[in-house]
Amino acid sequence: MKLALWERYKQYLWESAELGLKLDISRMNFPADYLEEMAPRIKAALDDMVSLEAGAIANPDEKRMVGHYWLRAPELAPRQEIRADIQDSLASIKDFADHVHAGRIISPGGKTFSRLLIIGIGGSALGPQLMAHALGTAGDPMKAFFLDNTDPDGMDLVLEEIGEQLGETIAIVISKSGKTIETRNGMIEAKRAWLSRGIPFERCAVAITEAGSLLDEIARAEGWLARFPLWDWVGGRTSVTSPVGVLPAALQGFDIQSFLAGARRCDELTRQLDVMSNPAALLALMWHHATGGCGKKDMVVIPYKDRLILFPRYLQQLVMESLGKRLGKDGRTVNQGISVFGNKGATDQHSYVQQLRDGVDNFFVTFIEVLKDRASESIQVESGITSGDYLQGFFLGTREALTEGGRESITITIERLDAFSLGVLVALYERAVGLYASLVNINAYHQPGVEAGKKAAGEVIRLQGQVMNLLREEKGKHFTPAEIAVTLGEPQAVEIIFKILEHAAANVDHHIEKIPARPSFETKYGYV
Amino acid sequence: MKLALWERYKQYLWESAELGLKLDISRMNFPADYLEEMAPRIKAALDDMVSLEAGAIANPDEKRMVGHYWLRAPELAPRQEIRADIQDSLASIKDFADHVHAGRIISPGGKTFSRLLIIGIGGSALGPQLMAHALGTAGDPMKAFFLDNTDPDGMDLVLEEIGEQLGETIAIVISKSGKTIETRNGMIEAKRAWLSRGIPFERCAVAITEAGSLLDEIARAEGWLARFPLWDWVGGRTSVTSPVGVLPAALQGFDIQSFLAGARRCDELTRQLDVMSNPAALLALMWHHATGGCGKKDMVVIPYKDRLILFPRYLQQLVMESLGKRLGKDGRTVNQGISVFGNKGATDQHSYVQQLRDGVDNFFVTFIEVLKDRASESIQVESGITSGDYLQGFFLGTREALTEGGRESITITIERLDAFSLGVLVALYERAVGLYASLVNINAYHQPGVEAGKKAAGEVIRLQGQVMNLLREEKGKHFTPAEIAVTLGEPQAVEIIFKILEHAAANVDHHIEKIPARPSFETKYGYV
Repeated sequence: MKLALWERYKQYLWESAELGLKLDISRMNFPADYLEEMAPRIKAALDDMVSLEAGAIANPDEKRMVGHYWLRAPELAPRQEIRADIQDSLASIKDFADHVHAGRIISPGGKTFSRLLIIGIGGSALGPQLMAHALGTAGDPMKAFFLDNTDPDGMDLVLEEIGEQLGETIAIVISKSGKTIETRNGMIEAKRAWLSRGIPFERCAVAITEAGSLLDEIARAEGWLARFPLWDWVGGRTSVTSPVGVLPAALQGFDIQSFLAGARRCDELTRQLDVMSNPAALLALMWHHATGGCGKKDMVVIPYKDRLILFPRYLQQLVMESLGKRLGKDGRTVNQGISVFGNKGATDQHSYVQQLRDGVDNFFVTFIEVLKDRASESIQVESGITSGDYLQGFFLGTREALTEGGRESITITIERLDAFSLGVLVALYERAVGLYASLVNINAYHQPGVEAGKKAAGEVIRLQGQVMNLLREEKGKHFTPAEIAVTLGEPQAVEIIFKILEHAAANVDHHIEKIPARPSFETKYGYV
Repeated sequence: MKLALWERYKQYLWESAELGLKLDISRMNFPADYLEEMAPRIKAALDDMVSLEAGAIANPDEKRMVGHYWLRAPELAPRQEIRADIQDSLASIKDFADHVHAGRIISPGGKTFSRLLIIGIGGSALGPQLMAHALGTAGDPMKAFFLDNTDPDGMDLVLEEIGEQLGETIAIVISKSGKTIETRNGMIEAKRAWLSRGIPFERCAVAITEAGSLLDEIARAEGWLARFPLWDWVGGRTSVTSPVGVLPAALQGFDIQSFLAGARRCDELTRQLDVMSNPAALLALMWHHATGGCGKKDMVVIPYKDRLILFPRYLQQLVMESLGKRLGKDGRTVNQGISVFGNKGATDQHSYVQQLRDGVDNFFVTFIEVLKDRASESIQVESGITSGDYLQGFFLGTREALTEGGRESITITIERLDAFSLGVLVALYERAVGLYASLVNINAYHQPGVEAGKKAAGEVIRLQGQVMNLLREEKGKHFTPAEIAVTLGEPQAVEIIFKILEHAAANVDHHIEKIPARPSFETKYGYV
């Protein structure tokens, strides 16, 4: 069996010395004629991609083009104006980072900036987080922190961690629309932290947003340190090669040129129309094979590299937000998607890999192997054996055992983890997701569910306002949730009203007192 | 529909003011007679738990009892000797932490210890990581760092981060058997870091391990700062209330008494035989309902609290390693398990929640809501509205939308996140997992797949030794992987040999030179 596997390995291995990348699909049990059978469909998907890259309107909800590929190859953008935008923004990012590093742009207290506080959520955080973790070192000119939620305690924790260095911190507020609530809240909380230390926020703040957005207007009006553009043709989950990823990376001293070059070169190779020459097409086909084209198996991603622990989470967004769709392009209900999870190997072997080996067969694995262990020479942990040898040993041993148990796996090998190979990985998955979406006939570039979630939250906030108004007007009197619901003329909202009141009473901010009862939903609440 | 839901909420709500805990299963669509129908089976599961807690041999592979419940209620342990062990270890942990905090135990350089480097993997890391993240503040007497893998670059990164403070760092090496390779490697690499700075490692090192283990012997022979016990009746994934979790917690200044009290009190309430009074039984039954008792849906866990971001990963281990089993207790092949993933809300709403709302219906959600937002008062981000109100708004809005789309969810509400409630959550899930395992007739307390993975890795390391020996003997000559495989008499191992050589050639340690070829598996490798 192992020799047959070796023949299969040799038959299907895709590799590029230039990218430092190998893709091994030999341990996916697709039948011999699968690739041929799927050839017309993947050909159609590659054609879709051609029109996408040429500037077709790919997000019909928002009537916009999808152009993340242009970010690393501006010459491909459909209009001169877009080309210039990309090039200008890159030049201004480099310029800004140079000025900061050289101490020409300095903190209000006259110090060189040494910290970044990146305020964004979803696509405006995961990319920069991935890069910071994958490429950061203790010697970097700036260290990155993140506010990526509207959790008060979480924000306090991060601001505490920055502590006295807040005065040497640049806040980068990232929101394409400028209307993302969590990010707006993060900005307000950050502002307060700056002001409470007597440091002028605007002299430390930078915005990345669409020209003319609310955030852009605030930054302009308050005279922030700098503003960098985002464009309607960049989606959040594919924004890491835009200023969203590149500005923080440049400030941390990462090689952004090399990052973009990796993505660019991977794009070139994944445009090839011959399936066997195109690793993104092979990946998409393997996903299709494993999941039956309908998400019936989960994608478990296990990089054997601590620095890539956030890559599965990054892919979780890229894949699930792109592919998790109710409707097909033809308007039919399809409920598509592929679930993605994973952290890192060998660590995960002491966790859920027990289930992968022995338990329910509802997944396929993607292993990511990195050949270079570390910058320096290693010590021997046993005669002739290094820690890195064991890391590889655990990977190979686990993969072997999964294969023996009939569990499928893909292996991606990169020569080393650096800005270039990170760009390669990002571009490889961006394109595989786009191709897969075409294969299953869905739109990968909108997110109607996210919009609906925001709307539902707004409804809760509106209701909270009404509840609090009512209690304030009836100051000193106490009511059950059911009574309040009826009084407000929203009897069906009683559960949400109960939960709003429980939350309000647990915090000092709303001056809500409760007269506890059991069961708790008979508690009475009043404004005091 | 919403009013019917409210009636269902009132009917099924489980709550305890003492624990500060609510469990809401009303949005799981189990039929009206489900709980009754399952009553005999959950009764049997609760009986199993009684014998487990009384000291039955629950891990037949390793012939050991399973006694993590005794850790917070020593009086329940089946033997006086175990009771004394638990109490003595707790006393010595408190004592040790007091001495460290008071500067009676100080660093070799005469400084108060301010950092912890916890070296462990799987159950010996996830618990302490969860606690550090959930409870840590900038004002803690010690700050925790982790080596939880055998990744050279990852270890370099952590040691770099500690930097000059290494001299004020206590290394806690955690391995029950004392034979965990990743941990052994971490210890060796850490030792080197200490020695390279001229600091005697043994005066900063602490072991948590079984008495008489290899690690225990090393610690004793080298005269480490302290040794704390682990016992064969504590499994890794249920070790957070043992010294594994409690020693690091005490050193970080967390309230371990309160943590253990939370777990203890939750244990008491989850021993109740009446299903409707027992939240662990309700949880287990909901898992059974959702997954059909065979893992057909994934468990997505979304805590709306940054500090709980590691809780889903902690549960991923606890649930998947416990439930992901090939064989039932009756020896039949069952391939059980439940896949678990999640990070935190609202952040995940800007990621995979798009798929949960609109995509493939292969999951149920557990929301974790924390009522108290932060220690201090909040500012208003809009008139009358705080960041925390929005956090709740996003949670409620998303939950509402999922319900409308027919997606099931459980909601766990805790009053506040602190040591006590963390103990409650840990104990709640430990018991739910045990009960669920009984429901589906598997053993939750062994991990045969993990052992097999270690063995397979050992095989790779053995092979590497042979390959390197061969090349050293033939110094200067170059061979293809296929040639080496044949020479070694292991022709079927050619793929692994190829991968070993690629890894060796990418690192300086093994002095392997390659004569590149395309395809790469025709490359020749030699020792130089």
